[in-house]
Amino acid sequence: MSLRETRFQRFVQAMQHADQLLTATALDDLFEQMLDLMVSATEAEAGTLALYDEDTQTLVIRAVTGLSGAQRLLNTRGAASQGLAGDALRRGTALFVANASRDPYQDWISDMAAVLPLRTVHCQPLVSQGRPLGCIHVFNLPDTLSEESEELALINLLGSRLVSELEKAQILAEAQRRERRQQALLEIVSHLTTTLDRDELLNRIMSHACELLNVEATSIWLRDSARDDLVLHIAAGSNRERIVAQRVPARHGIIGHVVATGETVAVNDVSSDPRFYRQIDASSGFVTRSILCVPLKAPRIQLGDARGIAEERIIGGAQALNPRDGAGFAADDIALFETLASQAATVIRLAQLYAEVSALSTRIIDAITGAIDLKDPYTRGHSQRVSDFSVAIAEELGLSSDEVYRVRIASKLHDVGKIRVPDRILKKRRPLTDAEFAQMRQHPEYGLEFLKENGLLELEVLRDSWTALSQHHERLDGRGYPGGLSGDEISLVGRIVAVADVFDAITSHRPYQPARSVDEAISILRSLAGVEFDSDCVEALVRARARGLIHTQEERGERDHTPKRRRPTRRRSVWMAG
Amino acid sequence: MSLRETRFQRFVQAMQHADQLLTATALDDLFEQMLDLMVSATEAEAGTLALYDEDTQTLVIRAVTGLSGAQRLLNTRGAASQGLAGDALRRGTALFVANASRDPYQDWISDMAAVLPLRTVHCQPLVSQGRPLGCIHVFNLPDTLSEESEELALINLLGSRLVSELEKAQILAEAQRRERRQQALLEIVSHLTTTLDRDELLNRIMSHACELLNVEATSIWLRDSARDDLVLHIAAGSNRERIVAQRVPARHGIIGHVVATGETVAVNDVSSDPRFYRQIDASSGFVTRSILCVPLKAPRIQLGDARGIAEERIIGGAQALNPRDGAGFAADDIALFETLASQAATVIRLAQLYAEVSALSTRIIDAITGAIDLKDPYTRGHSQRVSDFSVAIAEELGLSSDEVYRVRIASKLHDVGKIRVPDRILKKRRPLTDAEFAQMRQHPEYGLEFLKENGLLELEVLRDSWTALSQHHERLDGRGYPGGLSGDEISLVGRIVAVADVFDAITSHRPYQPARSVDEAISILRSLAGVEFDSDCVEALVRARARGLIHTQEERGERDHTPKRRRPTRRRSVWMAG
Repeated sequence: MSLRETRFQRFVQAMQHADQLLTATALDDLFEQMLDLMVSATEAEAGTLALYDEDTQTLVIRAVTGLSGAQRLLNTRGAASQGLAGDALRRGTALFVANASRDPYQDWISDMAAVLPLRTVHCQPLVSQGRPLGCIHVFNLPDTLSEESEELALINLLGSRLVSELEKAQILAEAQRRERRQQALLEIVSHLTTTLDRDELLNRIMSHACELLNVEATSIWLRDSARDDLVLHIAAGSNRERIVAQRVPARHGIIGHVVATGETVAVNDVSSDPRFYRQIDASSGFVTRSILCVPLKAPRIQLGDARGIAEERIIGGAQALNPRDGAGFAADDIALFETLASQAATVIRLAQLYAEVSALSTRIIDAITGAIDLKDPYTRGHSQRVSDFSVAIAEELGLSSDEVYRVRIASKLHDVGKIRVPDRILKKRRPLTDAEFAQMRQHPEYGLEFLKENGLLELEVLRDSWTALSQHHERLDGRGYPGGLSGDEISLVGRIVAVADVFDAITSHRPYQPARSVDEAISILRSLAGVEFDSDCVEALVRARARGLIHTQEERGERDHTPKRRRPTRRRSVWMAG
Repeated sequence: MSLRETRFQRFVQAMQHADQLLTATALDDLFEQMLDLMVSATEAEAGTLALYDEDTQTLVIRAVTGLSGAQRLLNTRGAASQGLAGDALRRGTALFVANASRDPYQDWISDMAAVLPLRTVHCQPLVSQGRPLGCIHVFNLPDTLSEESEELALINLLGSRLVSELEKAQILAEAQRRERRQQALLEIVSHLTTTLDRDELLNRIMSHACELLNVEATSIWLRDSARDDLVLHIAAGSNRERIVAQRVPARHGIIGHVVATGETVAVNDVSSDPRFYRQIDASSGFVTRSILCVPLKAPRIQLGDARGIAEERIIGGAQALNPRDGAGFAADDIALFETLASQAATVIRLAQLYAEVSALSTRIIDAITGAIDLKDPYTRGHSQRVSDFSVAIAEELGLSSDEVYRVRIASKLHDVGKIRVPDRILKKRRPLTDAEFAQMRQHPEYGLEFLKENGLLELEVLRDSWTALSQHHERLDGRGYPGGLSGDEISLVGRIVAVADVFDAITSHRPYQPARSVDEAISILRSLAGVEFDSDCVEALVRARARGLIHTQEERGERDHTPKRRRPTRRRSVWMAG
């Protein structure tokens, strides 16, 4: 077998060996093994493999073979633009230096001369479509090899395989990075919709934004249409405690511009932007270098109720300040922040819409029950107190938050039927006639009718709690009204409200009797437990009182100081509860 | 230069040529060019390159060289398990057949014998980590080549490069597929939150699910807790019109199991699953083969209002039926459907929560205003009609939907101040005294106080529309009450409600006057336009009436047939509007 034949076979064997390595070896180990292969196949003395780091524009040595002190060289860096490697990367072709001792290139590789007297150097750049990926140096090839030798082609061919593997790894890493980022975004977006509590929502958005964008600070500004300005609602990052509740007049600053126009603004050097509003930095001590500011644009939202739709509106803006890596905001940072802001704006708007309609229902219920209580000045605040006491009892009994909510609403409405009892009966100072008393005792039924006629019974909240209205004057022994229900016929809600109602009646000032103490009230309730009232509910109230959750009319400062009137009612029950 | 040397050089040149192709050529063109290279470098007569199709387990010819009728062969398929290729793929190594005419392999490649008498065949499998990607056949190599020749190694080496490129392409394609799918999911999830209209929401979810999963049908079942069953709310796909409003008893069928347990169930052959509930197919005519059923699990939601939190609950389930590709449901289909269902459940729950509280506020407002109207039986339904008329006028004037919503709520409350006017005045049959009349005329101010004292003025809806209460008895000429405001001092909302209020007063039956016709009412309003009423509002009402949007008490059948009473009020305005 001729020398040539041996070379050819060795060449092919090296290529085949490389293929085995490439299919079976993880990228990190591959560098060293491929370099070993190149050095041994070319019968050279030593070699290095360096990868290009785009951020710092340097070459980082990732594999060394055939050199003493190899560990010391690993991960050392050199400028990618200099020396033999710089030239090879620029030209995109391998360079062969036949007499390295007279090599004009002064580069980082020449450090090696200290450990290895250099004769020949072959430098193979690793380039993918004009983009530098790294370079391979092979030192002291046999004297029989020249620049034209097929062995040097081997290095080139193996280098191409490495480039291909590096590209695969980069594609995969980039795809994984994008997928992770999108996955994170999807999780954030999903997570946002699990709260309609605006402040909690803003907190979540900001902490996610800080993390995703890796910036020093983020903030959210919401429009205050009543005052025509922007209010800083939340800030995350350094100095955040010094910058809450700041305001910026509408259309001022970069944030004002973004909110007014709906355009995203990215400014990598705010000192050169005349729109930058310096007052915030001045008062917080934070030094803003660069800003990414996106509008919080809530879309048109279909509501499916009488309101129909809520129109599109820009509700504010979100800012990210000073990327930690020192670079400016990249296109995909901007896109990410815009996506986050867009979804955040939608959910903030949903929270606003929910809060508005929830406040409307709560306040209108408070208003109507308050107005009914006012028909008799001595029951002022009664409905609210009965509701508070009922909630305290329900919580003490371990009811779920959904059930507690139902108790809260229904108990507040317990006397709403009185809206149909004429003023002349409600406000009468003299004793009621039998007919008047009978009408007065119809208020639980009137209340239920009020719910029924207005479709309120169909709502989940009242469908399961309407007995607060119809049964709060029933008694366990069946001697209550209007149904004369007894024992288990009376619902838990009815029992709870009955206790809360009478407790308030006993502890409130009434024209016909002074307020009694809490202790007296508790003994009265306990004495009637099991007869008139549910013992568990009575004891729950006692425990809630002990935990500081029950405050009487007097303790709340809600006593009405109108002079006392007498109306000695003919009571069937012990107390003529509200 | 020896023959061997020439062979070596040609080998290296072929490899270098391949590298150039690989860096510069798109994948589709690469197959043909790489095949050409392999055939010419080995001095063979012809070759084919086939890729493996995983779905059909066939090899598909993607490149042909050196054969007449090459076009005919392109894209033809053969079973990947048979013949020489099948054997090579199984073993994972190249196979060389030195005498093809005596080749025992009966395979699809043998078709070629018709156009090319075969001598030698070399079959190079393309395999990546045991996974078949394709195979290369090279036909009629020179007689000088044997199984051991380095030229055959070239085919192997070039094949490896192709495998590497295919892997890159596959990684990229898979990454892009995942990214697209995630992007689609993110867009769906973002899009879902732009509606709280439950039916619209369900429609969106179903159409997205059908598209993402590529199935024949999808459906959503929601729990009806009042009836303890599951209701089919929406179905997409074939036979959908025949399967709406179906019900399944709780805990029955696969859907019942999923809703009861919260577990995802995928059944690729329902005929073998005892849980399958056949009644639905029986009535729809749809034939269910496979089911993927996921729970709609709404998370615990923070509400930020008095309700606090809405507890986690399974609100129903979503089904996907019969994947169109005939295969079963894959793991990533299941994960995707679960993610979609999870987010859908959250938004459906938000829609439920919003709808509940919105209905509560609407119905409680209707109830209270209805109760106030009832204090004087002759104003029954008045508040609702004034609200409807005001909305019609506002829409006719081109107000935005947000503004129309404000008008709707505020106008319904326009007389709420009457809750503080004693019954003896409201219900008085004889003429009112000066003092009584003065108190009656305080109802606009009482209304405003009602809003203020109960924090209702702070709400956006009333902050911009409270003048519906306080200004609906003002007149453009300044002779109205309570403020005596004139011209532009009266807000648009005040002007709208003034017109709606008087129109209802004129066209309703009152104790002291019969209802007048719409034509009469319009002439009266027009005669006072510019003096008492805003002309634009009057004309808007006339146009709305012409468009069929205004219906009087009589037309609505809301006339109360209580016998007439007389109360000749001392009117300062033309009509003593509600």
